[in-house]
Amino acid sequence: MHGTAPSASADLDETTVTEAAVASFRDTPDPRLRACLSILVRHLHAAVREMEPTLEEWEVAVDFLTATGQKCDDTRQEFVLLSDVLGISSLVENINHRKSSVATEATVLGPFHMTDSPERELGDSIDEVGKTEPCLVTGRIVSVDGTPLPGAGVDVWQADEDGYYDVQRPDVLPPGNGRGLFTADGEGSFSFTTVVPSYYPIPTDGPVGRLLLATNRHPYRPAHIHFIATANGHIPVTTHIFVAESPYLDSDAVFAVKSSLITDFHRLDDPGKAAEHGLPNPYVHAHVELVLEPSRGGGRG
Amino acid sequence: MHGTAPSASADLDETTVTEAAVASFRDTPDPRLRACLSILVRHLHAAVREMEPTLEEWEVAVDFLTATGQKCDDTRQEFVLLSDVLGISSLVENINHRKSSVATEATVLGPFHMTDSPERELGDSIDEVGKTEPCLVTGRIVSVDGTPLPGAGVDVWQADEDGYYDVQRPDVLPPGNGRGLFTADGEGSFSFTTVVPSYYPIPTDGPVGRLLLATNRHPYRPAHIHFIATANGHIPVTTHIFVAESPYLDSDAVFAVKSSLITDFHRLDDPGKAAEHGLPNPYVHAHVELVLEPSRGGGRG
Repeated sequence: MHGTAPSASADLDETTVTEAAVASFRDTPDPRLRACLSILVRHLHAAVREMEPTLEEWEVAVDFLTATGQKCDDTRQEFVLLSDVLGISSLVENINHRKSSVATEATVLGPFHMTDSPERELGDSIDEVGKTEPCLVTGRIVSVDGTPLPGAGVDVWQADEDGYYDVQRPDVLPPGNGRGLFTADGEGSFSFTTVVPSYYPIPTDGPVGRLLLATNRHPYRPAHIHFIATANGHIPVTTHIFVAESPYLDSDAVFAVKSSLITDFHRLDDPGKAAEHGLPNPYVHAHVELVLEPSRGGGRG
Repeated sequence: MHGTAPSASADLDETTVTEAAVASFRDTPDPRLRACLSILVRHLHAAVREMEPTLEEWEVAVDFLTATGQKCDDTRQEFVLLSDVLGISSLVENINHRKSSVATEATVLGPFHMTDSPERELGDSIDEVGKTEPCLVTGRIVSVDGTPLPGAGVDVWQADEDGYYDVQRPDVLPPGNGRGLFTADGEGSFSFTTVVPSYYPIPTDGPVGRLLLATNRHPYRPAHIHFIATANGHIPVTTHIFVAESPYLDSDAVFAVKSSLITDFHRLDDPGKAAEHGLPNPYVHAHVELVLEPSRGGGRG
């Protein structure tokens, strides 16, 4: 075969293809998209240049990403899980919540915030199964100066005492079990009853589970309850509280533990207080203060 | 909430989470997998650190990757397409085929090599529709020293004169149209008839198409025929020949054009030769020499 003269973007080689790929996005109207694609192309190409993958390895990567997408459905988000176990979710959260002095630290959303939490009344139980010791969670949503935030919203979700979210055991757990959407009272306070969540393995029946297996990584997360707190004029926070006695606080599979979020779950033996909350005695109690930062003009609050 | 003492991997921040994520893979038994994950984590984190994505942008990325996986099926490979339009496939090919002096240059596999090509006899037509001018393709598979490679295999696939592969128009095109698996004769020669392929847009009805739209990139590839040539004792080559008169040779959407692969498709007016090949006169003729490199001991040949 004989050719015509090489043209601008023909005959790209391993040293020139990166700039050609970056240049291909030069007419992107949105400058932010153009900047992000340029950064991604350069770093992905740098990774490829450093790995020098064989074609078979490239195919393994394509198959892995395809299987990751195909594992996703209405209640399963395998790409969030992949982002989590690679530490990317934690990095993104840390970048977006550079610690202000006193506001509650944020941590990862995780892959289980996919269904709407049912609206519940203050004091309600989010546990609809009730087969173990009840736990009272009390909380307060305040601004960084300590002012309570009446009417603030708090979205809560957690695994049960066996380590399962509702969507993982649809045959056994009613939809909405372990979830609740509450509105704080006039003092910014809220409370609900639940069960003490268990530590649990992230789902291992998909591509991310195979990755952990192949790399001798355990899949466990320490026990925690998720919160998203929102209030007028304030920046929402997505966070957890971690059960202080839980294993895996020092090796969370998704790199999300902040020591400021580790919370004592006290066992209380106080028949009077138990009766006041309509709980059997003894019971467990945890308290959480969610401290929100005011949004600056036009912010997300 | 009040905490216990921070432990080894709690309280990771944007400066420490990368090394923690790399360290999490330290017990990976396969050293190649460990090395690749370490490289990927570092470069992906570096990209995130440079982009500083908002949580909403991170969600857009998760949704894009999920949709890309979910667009894949038995005949569609959207992650290959994504790798192609980002220049990654071209980079991987270039790394794996650092140009030896005379061997045929490799180029990308592309997303349409998903079904087995039907075995055909030398001289057969790979076009089963026959509604336009026929094209004779002759070829020869030789080693770098010019020695013919009898019995070499050649897998061929191409779009039709309207720019469609069989799998894209299953209602109109018979399965295997535009595809053939041939065995070279005792001289290393092969031939088949077909139609001159058209330039075409890569599929734009998925996430990759939306990416091209959002970035004002055209989706076109110059007209080409794909080949994979294999022979005993030689390294296989995955390549194309490009139609010399085609538009888009200088702006291939997947960065795959090599000037050495641009091939003249001659229109011939020679009733004698036409009759010899059982073709109407005039017809089009293209010739391709596929030059394979010997594999070094235990290679892939």
